[in-house]
Amino acid sequence: MAQLLSSSCSLAFSSTNKPSLKPFNQCTTSFSSTVGCDSSSTPLRRLFLQQQKPRKSFVVVNAATVSTGQEAPVQTSSGDPFKPKRVMVIGGDGYCGWATALHLSNKGYDVAIVDNLVRRLFDHQLGLDSLTPISSIQDRIQRWKSLTGKSIELYIGDICEFEFLSETFKSYEPDAVVHFGEQRSAPYSMIDRSRAVYTQQNNVVGTLNVLFAIKEFREDCHLVKLGTMGEYGTPNIDIEEGYITITHNGRTDTLPYPKQASSFYHLSKVHDSHNIAFTCKAWGIRATDLNQGVVYGVRTDETAMHEELCNRFDYDAIFGTALNRFCVQAAVGHPLTVYGKGGQTRGFLDIRDTVQCIELAIANPANPGEFRVFNQFTEQFKVSELANLVTKAGEKLGLDVKTISVPNPRVELEEHYYNCKNTKLVDLGLRPHFLSDSLIDSLLNFAVQYKNRVDKKQIMPGVSWRKVGVKTKTV
Amino acid sequence: MAQLLSSSCSLAFSSTNKPSLKPFNQCTTSFSSTVGCDSSSTPLRRLFLQQQKPRKSFVVVNAATVSTGQEAPVQTSSGDPFKPKRVMVIGGDGYCGWATALHLSNKGYDVAIVDNLVRRLFDHQLGLDSLTPISSIQDRIQRWKSLTGKSIELYIGDICEFEFLSETFKSYEPDAVVHFGEQRSAPYSMIDRSRAVYTQQNNVVGTLNVLFAIKEFREDCHLVKLGTMGEYGTPNIDIEEGYITITHNGRTDTLPYPKQASSFYHLSKVHDSHNIAFTCKAWGIRATDLNQGVVYGVRTDETAMHEELCNRFDYDAIFGTALNRFCVQAAVGHPLTVYGKGGQTRGFLDIRDTVQCIELAIANPANPGEFRVFNQFTEQFKVSELANLVTKAGEKLGLDVKTISVPNPRVELEEHYYNCKNTKLVDLGLRPHFLSDSLIDSLLNFAVQYKNRVDKKQIMPGVSWRKVGVKTKTV
Repeated sequence: MAQLLSSSCSLAFSSTNKPSLKPFNQCTTSFSSTVGCDSSSTPLRRLFLQQQKPRKSFVVVNAATVSTGQEAPVQTSSGDPFKPKRVMVIGGDGYCGWATALHLSNKGYDVAIVDNLVRRLFDHQLGLDSLTPISSIQDRIQRWKSLTGKSIELYIGDICEFEFLSETFKSYEPDAVVHFGEQRSAPYSMIDRSRAVYTQQNNVVGTLNVLFAIKEFREDCHLVKLGTMGEYGTPNIDIEEGYITITHNGRTDTLPYPKQASSFYHLSKVHDSHNIAFTCKAWGIRATDLNQGVVYGVRTDETAMHEELCNRFDYDAIFGTALNRFCVQAAVGHPLTVYGKGGQTRGFLDIRDTVQCIELAIANPANPGEFRVFNQFTEQFKVSELANLVTKAGEKLGLDVKTISVPNPRVELEEHYYNCKNTKLVDLGLRPHFLSDSLIDSLLNFAVQYKNRVDKKQIMPGVSWRKVGVKTKTV
Repeated sequence: MAQLLSSSCSLAFSSTNKPSLKPFNQCTTSFSSTVGCDSSSTPLRRLFLQQQKPRKSFVVVNAATVSTGQEAPVQTSSGDPFKPKRVMVIGGDGYCGWATALHLSNKGYDVAIVDNLVRRLFDHQLGLDSLTPISSIQDRIQRWKSLTGKSIELYIGDICEFEFLSETFKSYEPDAVVHFGEQRSAPYSMIDRSRAVYTQQNNVVGTLNVLFAIKEFREDCHLVKLGTMGEYGTPNIDIEEGYITITHNGRTDTLPYPKQASSFYHLSKVHDSHNIAFTCKAWGIRATDLNQGVVYGVRTDETAMHEELCNRFDYDAIFGTALNRFCVQAAVGHPLTVYGKGGQTRGFLDIRDTVQCIELAIANPANPGEFRVFNQFTEQFKVSELANLVTKAGEKLGLDVKTISVPNPRVELEEHYYNCKNTKLVDLGLRPHFLSDSLIDSLLNFAVQYKNRVDKKQIMPGVSWRKVGVKTKTV
């Protein structure tokens, strides 16, 4: 059950010399008897880089759009005096995580990235690649420092290994943890049994460990957890933000909104939500669950500053999200692949709003014991509507864009009622970037710019919800 | 992520020589390339016993109460022609599992027990023991065979190891799987971080594996899964059986009943329920989720047949359930320990009804794709009411029974509304054994009979919901 870890050291790479931080170099004796571990996780890669590699030369682009760093807002909606300054971004090397880490750093927060970089490993294993060339996390952080003077600390390791996570917490002492550090693809979780189990184990255990770390080492720390709108499924009634007031047989209560997730990935987020809600009640954890919609776009003010800060852009059938994938398909002359009837309606948002929402959640923390749920999207679209928008934008660019319906690899309603509330983040100050012709134009241009990097074999869906089996699939 | 298992063999002990069963002795080549595994689980103990140990001599008791084995009912409520005969009882060495395995065998089903026996390991690790002496699973099965002529097959292994589970499925070819094989104690899951993580990982991954095994090897097999009434928590509205019809903003839908579990154990059952519901929808699995109340009692018709078939009886603060624990406390002159105000209301049932409910669920299987939820309890009581019943029964026996309120180690409402539906099993034919004076009398007498085996140190609660921490606790 509980196995003792070997006494190897947890080592952290930090691009700062912040004196209050202890490097992870006192290990064997200090915690060898205190923690168990989960033997489940991917082998931990621990790096200790004392010397930076020589920098390549890049052109700074778009730097004028970057606002100057400013003090983070400190008042909370509840009058709570809690003033977050130090933010740990778990999964900070990923699509949403990297953009968020830079945004928060730019806004004056002290930021640390925690990541085991397993998302990069998935690309290797599945033969996938980001449309955009992305730099190593070490180079990214170094570039950010050289451009802005701002340091981002880096802890390389797996949060499923509690020994690593606890030392990271004790070292960094976060005021807020933004938790993107999960396997985040529904198709990935449906490839085979081992990926299904991995997804739930990794996501659930990682989040449990974060909750225990907060309770043990940093009880006032605010957990900002990425959930998904997919937790709700597609009920035939309006979707509220986390809770619904039900009157039944003459009595009334406000209860967690019923969950109907439709992949092992989405289910893992449902499990997380239930676990977090319990710890808020039992331990007084303060948490915000951000049920995020489908994110599109690539540039944020910060990632646009320099090629080396460029975010990843997934267009494949495993990790690519609908609008991004359609733009790449249009750019390379591949028909847009609409699954089934295309009447599937979802909530969407621009990645510039993702980073804004996270900032708002951090700046306005939940109260101790509060499990707060925000629906994080700005607009609803049917998939077929997105295809139409991309088709029109493509025509303006002289592209001949076709759409085909492919057999739906998922099990989902293809025509359904869908009406979700999303007012809580707007009430906190979110100013949405609605999907515009100009945004689609720029995404399309972006895809055209990189179209020689497209691997068309990755576009068609290859993972079936119905055919997933126990045999481990390799490429 | 996916590690290949070593090519050690899965071996099964079977007390039968049923010719259609292949023993587990064709291993290395047949599945070494087909499955990944979860590196999370307790090392598998694989037994292959060709020779039985010499039998000890026991007196057969109460044999006259055993009904003769009879054909299992075959009609289903839906007119479905599916006629279950072969039942796999996962966790068949435990409190509910053992009683169920014998009951089903007695009723004419072909039964196999799958168990890794880890519950016995927990007793060793925590320094606990059943009030009743219990025989080894091998001796139990052999005794059952010698008394009734009925064979129960035995597969010793961990369902979190998919290699073991898949071979067991292929060998036994079950028509129904009764899944008790989970860590089932709320306090155990709240001992420390490693037990919390173990509980969720073990329960969630084990159930995922069972679902994949059914899909891959036995798609018509009916999953009868033990959930818990604790999944619902204590909402201020009536609790329905699994689903609730909600009218909201003028629209209506029937949705999964909201879940508010209150320990990492109860949460693991919530996670299971969501996972199973998804696979029913996506894969057409037929499943019944039995949200069971608190079980009391020890004897069933079958376990009462012989000392060597005796069921376990837990009275400690980790595994003991309320009424059983109160009876032991009364027998040894320990005050009954009511947690907090004692107004906590729960659903309860006699273990003789547990086995009856399982039989009814198997005989009337869910339809393919149906996720059916039954609330499996017969009566509601406040904890303080149970204490009063035991006090009165103790007085009749001349025992001086006192009740004390101890600080509640749990985080739960101590006074609350509670009204749960439980008609579905009654509709299928359940004839409840309601809690009676005579049952309490016999339980008390039973406790008095074994009172010299009581370890009073195990009675007081030692696990706190609020104080659970990351440091691994040892006895």
